[in-house]
Amino acid sequence: MLIVQKYGGSSLATAEKILYVANKIKENYLKGNDMVVVLSAQGDMTDILLEKAKEISKNPSKRELDVLLSTGEVQSAALMAMALEDRGFSAVSLNALQAGIFSTSEHGLAKIVSINPTRIKNELKAKKIVIITGFQGIDEHGNITTLGRGASDTTAIALASALVADLCEIYTDVEGIYTADPKQVENAIKHKELCYNETLELAQMGASVLHSRSVELAQKFGIDFFVKSSTIESEPTLIKACNLEEKIISGIASEKKICKLSITNISGEKMLLILQLLAMHKISVDMASCVANNLSFVVHKSDLSKTLEIINAYFSEEILVEKNLVKISLVGTGVAYDTEILALFYETLLKEGVEISLLSLSTIKISVLVKKDDTKRAIKALHKNLVEGV
Amino acid sequence: MLIVQKYGGSSLATAEKILYVANKIKENYLKGNDMVVVLSAQGDMTDILLEKAKEISKNPSKRELDVLLSTGEVQSAALMAMALEDRGFSAVSLNALQAGIFSTSEHGLAKIVSINPTRIKNELKAKKIVIITGFQGIDEHGNITTLGRGASDTTAIALASALVADLCEIYTDVEGIYTADPKQVENAIKHKELCYNETLELAQMGASVLHSRSVELAQKFGIDFFVKSSTIESEPTLIKACNLEEKIISGIASEKKICKLSITNISGEKMLLILQLLAMHKISVDMASCVANNLSFVVHKSDLSKTLEIINAYFSEEILVEKNLVKISLVGTGVAYDTEILALFYETLLKEGVEISLLSLSTIKISVLVKKDDTKRAIKALHKNLVEGV
Repeated sequence: MLIVQKYGGSSLATAEKILYVANKIKENYLKGNDMVVVLSAQGDMTDILLEKAKEISKNPSKRELDVLLSTGEVQSAALMAMALEDRGFSAVSLNALQAGIFSTSEHGLAKIVSINPTRIKNELKAKKIVIITGFQGIDEHGNITTLGRGASDTTAIALASALVADLCEIYTDVEGIYTADPKQVENAIKHKELCYNETLELAQMGASVLHSRSVELAQKFGIDFFVKSSTIESEPTLIKACNLEEKIISGIASEKKICKLSITNISGEKMLLILQLLAMHKISVDMASCVANNLSFVVHKSDLSKTLEIINAYFSEEILVEKNLVKISLVGTGVAYDTEILALFYETLLKEGVEISLLSLSTIKISVLVKKDDTKRAIKALHKNLVEGV
Repeated sequence: MLIVQKYGGSSLATAEKILYVANKIKENYLKGNDMVVVLSAQGDMTDILLEKAKEISKNPSKRELDVLLSTGEVQSAALMAMALEDRGFSAVSLNALQAGIFSTSEHGLAKIVSINPTRIKNELKAKKIVIITGFQGIDEHGNITTLGRGASDTTAIALASALVADLCEIYTDVEGIYTADPKQVENAIKHKELCYNETLELAQMGASVLHSRSVELAQKFGIDFFVKSSTIESEPTLIKACNLEEKIISGIASEKKICKLSITNISGEKMLLILQLLAMHKISVDMASCVANNLSFVVHKSDLSKTLEIINAYFSEEILVEKNLVKISLVGTGVAYDTEILALFYETLLKEGVEISLLSLSTIKISVLVKKDDTKRAIKALHKNLVEGV
């Protein structure tokens, strides 16, 4: 069986942890499996390297930042291969070029274009355990790129697809994907199975378990994969294609640090122009309401100053900003079109006295914007009535 | 003018130092020069990475150790390119593959086989400052190799040769090459010019200024180069081909931690066998004397345990070991064949009451083995009578 595994930075933070993971890889290999293992950088290495860059330049060259950051995964891959070789197992670390992972040239956010797995296959034929640097690629000019924070998941899914792997496992510091953040809701239930779309929504929950592009890629190529704990033996969550007819509630997701911007007395043309400008600057506007002459929309706190800058450059209208809001979403196939669910959702929040600042519906989720202080109470009540109750 | 420069790890240890070096590079570039800059890893980065490897394995895979160590130079090259870009200068960092530096496959001690400077030339044509990772190469299978500690000097000389550079400068933490270690002999004189062979002998002096293979390579390809201080403005030492007819004393070199091994009552066949065995195990035996049935030879302290192991495995003779000796060499073209110089050398040590444990002569040096406590006195006296006196 050909197995692709991915281990995150917290599973590799120390020599001891690397040796622990090496033992897990070894066990799988000894069962006769071909092993391809994708690694992130150790612990907070990526942050340490970013800090080094900031000491040199406030706005470091994106090409050179990619070169610098790429060394984190190269180090963890080399250390893991060493650990396996030390135990008498033949292993080899491969960087993006050696692994044939080709990407676009957008430094910092490159996308995988193609994978040429010739060398990986040759190393597997030679019975080697193949350790691959996650998070990075090579563009058409031979330059090093990175695929965005957390993108080692995406590397693993892309390799599983290119190698036609029999099994793909993403090891994380959580035990799987839950119906809500277990830190916030003690009755949160771990999913045994979950569809791609719902996973995408829930993935951002709590400790941001998965890189969203990895799930999109898995969906595109139909790669089923497991989300597992790297430290605890427990049943994982299987992420797979879903039966669209099935109506299921997957859980409650939340996203902090959301800002709501409101502009009153503005024309429809101007509203449209504002949204177009934001799209042009790649600022994601997740929720928006345009009622009469009033426009409200939300952006993440990290995009706030840029958003205000863009709007103020073109418009003189006053902008009202509400910071520190939280977006709570009920995720599940078809939930938004099920009026019973919608009604129960609304009623639950009303009974809890949670003020709803904005509400939006999409195919697989109902989202509301609430005050930070109401978050925990709202999530608990929604989980009790809509997840546990179902 | 095409200039190749090399900066060592101590010149790059902090963000501040990197910015200082960036300014020096910038100044040269602004004068209209094409700049190719070879960098070592920052400060003690290589030792930190070695320590990481040791935590994983007592005897780490040589291939993977090379992968790990190579990240040190990749980081300093990226940071330097960032620093230059931050100041508005177009720069690009290139790793060994991108720079076309191909080597043999002997991990840890690979030798440069060829350089394909196409990309470097293209980047120079585009008016970029090219920053290159020293110390590393790529073998024929696309694996990362390293060329040995301090080998960034060798990278610089090889690039100067491949690019037919107009000027090659090796920046170090000393001001040039002296007639003796300035820390030991206050009257030590800095050489304005020095021949390759003498440089090879003197290079090991004190802070081991140059990687010996870089000097051999420079000699092979006739590359003249300067050894300069990266922090102090002062006249450098020019290393160049020498006039073999000229008789000059270049200086006094010394090497610490030398062990002398003596075996008495041993046959000539056995003596030969011992020396052959040591050669086979790549243990360098620098001085040896075989008088009657007595064999004496010296090895560096780091080779002592392996040497004893090898000899004890084949021979039962008792081995007498003297540790903590120092080898002092008078270096200069033809010195060993000039009986006047040899006599003065001997007389100087005799008058100072320095006991000579072993003496050997080669084309360009007279070497003696002395007790550690006699070293400073011996060097001072030899420098006074043979270097300053000449």
